[in-house]
Amino acid sequence: MASEVPPKRQKSAKDVPYHLIYWPGIPGRGEHVRLALEEAGAEYTDTAFTDGGVDEVLAYVQGKIPDDGLNPPPCAPPILKHGDLVISQTPNILLYLGNRLGLVPDADQDPDAMYKINALALTALDGLSNEPHDCHHPIASGLYYEDQKEEAKRRSEDYVKNRLPKFLSYFERVLESKASGDGPWLYGGALTYADLVLFQCVDGVKFMFPKAMAKLERGGKHAKVFQLYQAVAERPKIKAYLQSDRRQKYSNGIYRYYEELDFA
Amino acid sequence: MASEVPPKRQKSAKDVPYHLIYWPGIPGRGEHVRLALEEAGAEYTDTAFTDGGVDEVLAYVQGKIPDDGLNPPPCAPPILKHGDLVISQTPNILLYLGNRLGLVPDADQDPDAMYKINALALTALDGLSNEPHDCHHPIASGLYYEDQKEEAKRRSEDYVKNRLPKFLSYFERVLESKASGDGPWLYGGALTYADLVLFQCVDGVKFMFPKAMAKLERGGKHAKVFQLYQAVAERPKIKAYLQSDRRQKYSNGIYRYYEELDFA
Repeated sequence: MASEVPPKRQKSAKDVPYHLIYWPGIPGRGEHVRLALEEAGAEYTDTAFTDGGVDEVLAYVQGKIPDDGLNPPPCAPPILKHGDLVISQTPNILLYLGNRLGLVPDADQDPDAMYKINALALTALDGLSNEPHDCHHPIASGLYYEDQKEEAKRRSEDYVKNRLPKFLSYFERVLESKASGDGPWLYGGALTYADLVLFQCVDGVKFMFPKAMAKLERGGKHAKVFQLYQAVAERPKIKAYLQSDRRQKYSNGIYRYYEELDFA
Repeated sequence: MASEVPPKRQKSAKDVPYHLIYWPGIPGRGEHVRLALEEAGAEYTDTAFTDGGVDEVLAYVQGKIPDDGLNPPPCAPPILKHGDLVISQTPNILLYLGNRLGLVPDADQDPDAMYKINALALTALDGLSNEPHDCHHPIASGLYYEDQKEEAKRRSEDYVKNRLPKFLSYFERVLESKASGDGPWLYGGALTYADLVLFQCVDGVKFMFPKAMAKLERGGKHAKVFQLYQAVAERPKIKAYLQSDRRQKYSNGIYRYYEELDFA
């Protein structure tokens, strides 16, 4: 395809701060992006904390920006702006940041590692973020929770009984595999952004289904998953971030607490 | 992280055929992988058509393979084996193939294009593959359709009314954006694997919701999406593939036809 595409090299974004475009008021999917930026000590701005942040998110969502000939318009936040580049989709932003911020193994030493890390992140997001979201919104994301409460109970009960243990067991299996290497991490004996994603997913599910998660933790079958969770929480930069005002509280985002959905 | 990770260069996979590991009997998520391989004219094998294919899929799903110190175990098919590399997750496999088979712009000319294409593929898969699947399984993927039929009706009606037009409008907007360039494609004036993903998604949704899709096509608001669909179907290699025995019929996979869900 080289001959069909005109050169499109973008302005070097090497020393430009990252700019996260995400809704204020909830950690949401944007939180995965924040954790990667925080762990790497990267300089970034965040519409959750800037004047006019909501208006900026809305301008993207309504398709007003960008139409610059470089970037396809994004469908939904989180969106990352870095220099001239504008990209969306949580796992995609993480892939970009992972390659730039040292949150995947060095491509010279392990050239296909990015695909292995991407698969782990996608699987955590599927089973421990998208599925929990659908537990409180099984019928329609555009309807209120109250309009799908009975269906939400049915879906949450199945999730807690079948899906949640399935995904925790999967990640336990990854952590037990030879490819995980030494230490508490998912791949290659060193922290990658997939570990940060799994941390945030476990944290959210602990908030949403505290009874089930306490029981699963006591059960001991997923000990390595909970060890990874602790190990991420104790990373110095992550620890400082979690104690800061930048770490927002869960409310009406992906992870929500409803007593009637808190199955054991 | 370079200092923490030991070198893990894998056996060069340059001239090794690709091997797709996916359930026989349904096009499913594996179909996106097949379309990329077919369009590129790549040599590949496919467990859908090999003796013992099901057993091979099961060995991966049950976590028996791989435990080779190189690859984290995959969670679910589709899985791609290429030389020593084993990766899973549909958008991730496409990313890998896209970079290798010339289904994204040349990285020397447009180094961040892979992230733009990945975002488009992820969005199509979210809204036009995962959401349709949840239309017939809104409560639990482990339950029969018949056990969630009423909820499926409610979800499908909302999908056809709100979500399907939303995603088609989004891709129409992408096709109208300056970044799409000339011609029928989503990005940069040339076919990428995101176009193949959108084709397969539109094809599946046409099968599942024929009344709604016929009405949306007649409405004319998403003309460019349907033009892209035609343009992909007419690619010589894709056309030959669609007419071959390798193109499986829809049945009980992601896209299913139930008359009671066929809302207009």
